Amino acid sequence: MTTKYLLPEDRIPRHWYNILPDLPTPPSPVLHPGTLQPVKPEDLAPLFPSRIIEQEMGMEREVAIPEEVREALARWRPSPLFRAHALEKALGTRSHIYYKYEGVSPSGSHKPNSAVAQAFYNAKEGVKRLATETGAGQWGSSLAFAGQLFGLAVTVYMVKVSHEQKPYRRSMMRTWGAEVFASPSSQTQAGRRILEEDPKSNGSLGIAISEAVEDAATHEDTKYALGSVLNHVCMHQTVIGQEAREQMALAGEYPDVVIGCHGGGSNFAGIAFPYARDKMNGKQVRLVAAEPASCPTLTRGTYAFDYGDTVKMTPVVKMHTLGHDFMPPGIHAGGLRYHGASPLVSSLVHAGVVEAVAYTQKGCFEAALLFAKTEGIIPAPESSHAIKAVVEEARKADEEGRERVILFNLSGHGHFDLAAYDQYLAGGLEDHEYPREAIERSMGNLPKVELG
Amino acid sequence: MTTKYLLPEDRIPRHWYNILPDLPTPPSPVLHPGTLQPVKPEDLAPLFPSRIIEQEMGMEREVAIPEEVREALARWRPSPLFRAHALEKALGTRSHIYYKYEGVSPSGSHKPNSAVAQAFYNAKEGVKRLATETGAGQWGSSLAFAGQLFGLAVTVYMVKVSHEQKPYRRSMMRTWGAEVFASPSSQTQAGRRILEEDPKSNGSLGIAISEAVEDAATHEDTKYALGSVLNHVCMHQTVIGQEAREQMALAGEYPDVVIGCHGGGSNFAGIAFPYARDKMNGKQVRLVAAEPASCPTLTRGTYAFDYGDTVKMTPVVKMHTLGHDFMPPGIHAGGLRYHGASPLVSSLVHAGVVEAVAYTQKGCFEAALLFAKTEGIIPAPESSHAIKAVVEEARKADEEGRERVILFNLSGHGHFDLAAYDQYLAGGLEDHEYPREAIERSMGNLPKVELG
Repeated sequence: MTTKYLLPEDRIPRHWYNILPDLPTPPSPVLHPGTLQPVKPEDLAPLFPSRIIEQEMGMEREVAIPEEVREALARWRPSPLFRAHALEKALGTRSHIYYKYEGVSPSGSHKPNSAVAQAFYNAKEGVKRLATETGAGQWGSSLAFAGQLFGLAVTVYMVKVSHEQKPYRRSMMRTWGAEVFASPSSQTQAGRRILEEDPKSNGSLGIAISEAVEDAATHEDTKYALGSVLNHVCMHQTVIGQEAREQMALAGEYPDVVIGCHGGGSNFAGIAFPYARDKMNGKQVRLVAAEPASCPTLTRGTYAFDYGDTVKMTPVVKMHTLGHDFMPPGIHAGGLRYHGASPLVSSLVHAGVVEAVAYTQKGCFEAALLFAKTEGIIPAPESSHAIKAVVEEARKADEEGRERVILFNLSGHGHFDLAAYDQYLAGGLEDHEYPREAIERSMGNLPKVELG
Repeated sequence: MTTKYLLPEDRIPRHWYNILPDLPTPPSPVLHPGTLQPVKPEDLAPLFPSRIIEQEMGMEREVAIPEEVREALARWRPSPLFRAHALEKALGTRSHIYYKYEGVSPSGSHKPNSAVAQAFYNAKEGVKRLATETGAGQWGSSLAFAGQLFGLAVTVYMVKVSHEQKPYRRSMMRTWGAEVFASPSSQTQAGRRILEEDPKSNGSLGIAISEAVEDAATHEDTKYALGSVLNHVCMHQTVIGQEAREQMALAGEYPDVVIGCHGGGSNFAGIAFPYARDKMNGKQVRLVAAEPASCPTLTRGTYAFDYGDTVKMTPVVKMHTLGHDFMPPGIHAGGLRYHGASPLVSSLVHAGVVEAVAYTQKGCFEAALLFAKTEGIIPAPESSHAIKAVVEEARKADEEGRERVILFNLSGHGHFDLAAYDQYLAGGLEDHEYPREAIERSMGNLPKVELG
């Protein structure tokens, strides 16, 4: 009985897969937040190094991964693919469940896949410091680690609710030499403005992004790094799906359905885009993005132009959005508390290539606990949304008398989220249903875009 | 440049290596705590299932690993062996440094290697519940996980200072369904007696062992499980060294020195015993156990008969000891705060097969931080003692103009120990030197053994 499928180090992919040229509809332009007209690559130069801007907009289908980045990835990649025999047995399902485990990375999630690439390109172009935001701390700790590898200082604006819920994530970033501020902070104009309006603000990814962007834009030697949403980040994550395809072949199976949790979109894109490529080439495969019911961007949001941040400093992109000033409830899956979504994933949902589902957190923790007890890995609250979707897929398949091959991305472990498990076990966890009124309110504030 | 050496699942060892028949001097008898005369196997029956008692005393050199145990180990084994290129570069050393990484297990350390074996044998013999102690929580969480796998309830007595320092370890045990008490607790006579004498007692492994042994001895359906020290535990851990030997061969090298941290002895035995076998067969290899200067069992203790616990309930064994009522300072490496040592490792130190070194904690954290920044893994405080020894070995080799091949066991990650890193980074960590007076005092209380 084989439990895991490993690949040798030389099977770390040599190219990232850029899905942009393969989208069913051409990508929408990126707009300037002031003029609401298309930006030119040079408009992004205060925020990103030139190679990242090229990757963000490039139409090359396969982008070579620099050797230095492959060497950094070799610390933990290829990541293992597991057959979840024990979970299958506990569910009593006929379906075969596989998971790609990204928790083996230094920071315990998929995030370093893009962090090392971004740190590499910034260092190569002479940048000295990176400013970024983080939700649950997965991205911040990944960039702290990557900055350390390539000799860059890192400043992290960490969403306040997570800063308080997950103190060890903060410690991890400091251990890797990063400077960490709870966001909204008094370090930036954006942060001070939010604090004036609401001194008790929980923070949100939208606010923390505003702070990090302002920090980068106002310091000569500093650029900005984003852990999700953007095209280049999704592309960097495609090493996950490329490896998974090869490992599924070792297992002698091809998935009927591929599942990832969805916040900004990067881990979902990572596992799903290489399969989306297959699908657009005629292969039968379903792609399912699982998001929180309390922040239901793909299932309830509008596909429209919106700002990436709360304070309207970032470019405006066409994406599924709940409105840039929507404040999600303080659920434990901090990494999924984002009003927007990857424009690429949004476009694929709009085109019907990707399906989306939404779950409330208690059901996700229940699924995560079953997973921990059977498979022995305690999942991150974000990843628990994917597990919940897997459990539902297997149940439906059994009801229909079918046997499905289900593949999902276990994007990270929950070693820094155990307070949330405590709260769940003590019965103290709240479910947040679809926050209709708050969303309707923020939807009223979408920018009015008229393209010339 | 190869970073890691992986083995396929079918290379999980098929046998444990039992060093007992190969010891340079025959093993000393195990004594009854009341009579101080040799015990018979049946005297241990209230504590352990029969197959474990056989393994504790057996003289079979290779003991077959049951398939059910190999399947459980396959969740994370074979564990990876890494070449520490980045650490070597940072040290500027000519030496080659390799580490076997046991942090990939469910609980993040080597401990599940024995936990799954012990849970399997107990379940097979109809035991319903296991009682155990834990220091930093590595063993307790491992047994919680293993109990879950084989359908056993688990009760853990957790040393109070760690219970407070490492709340997430506690949560992890509860997530895997275990019942956890801070020790000394009011659950047992032993605990109540200690609390009467010192209501503010920090606890120690010796006390927690007394509580777990009492719990097992006074409940029909319950047995005791120990995470270190005993022969069968050391034997279960030899999968580490067996895999490492094979992986070092893949790397085309044989170590000049093999290093592990040392508390009770299990992770050290795991990496070192298969090499000790080579050494006793004439191979040139140094074996170095690294322990805390504040609890210097191997470097400063006496090789004598002593109790395994504080309240004198366990059998009496010949080992390096600081005295069963020695109370170690509350250092962060909770897993190394034990007054005694594995009788097997003690015997090998006594025979000159194994060397021992001791370090204070600040130097260990400094080495651990360097490791985290270069290799990307945040080590457990216990493992940091091995890293400190590695740094010293490499430095000495460079001074002597030599190039050494150094292999060490990175026994676990420090995801639950980040408060300790915070304290170190903030300059708030204390060093505890050799506690001479306390040790001299406890040495006066060794049992007076006269064998017939």
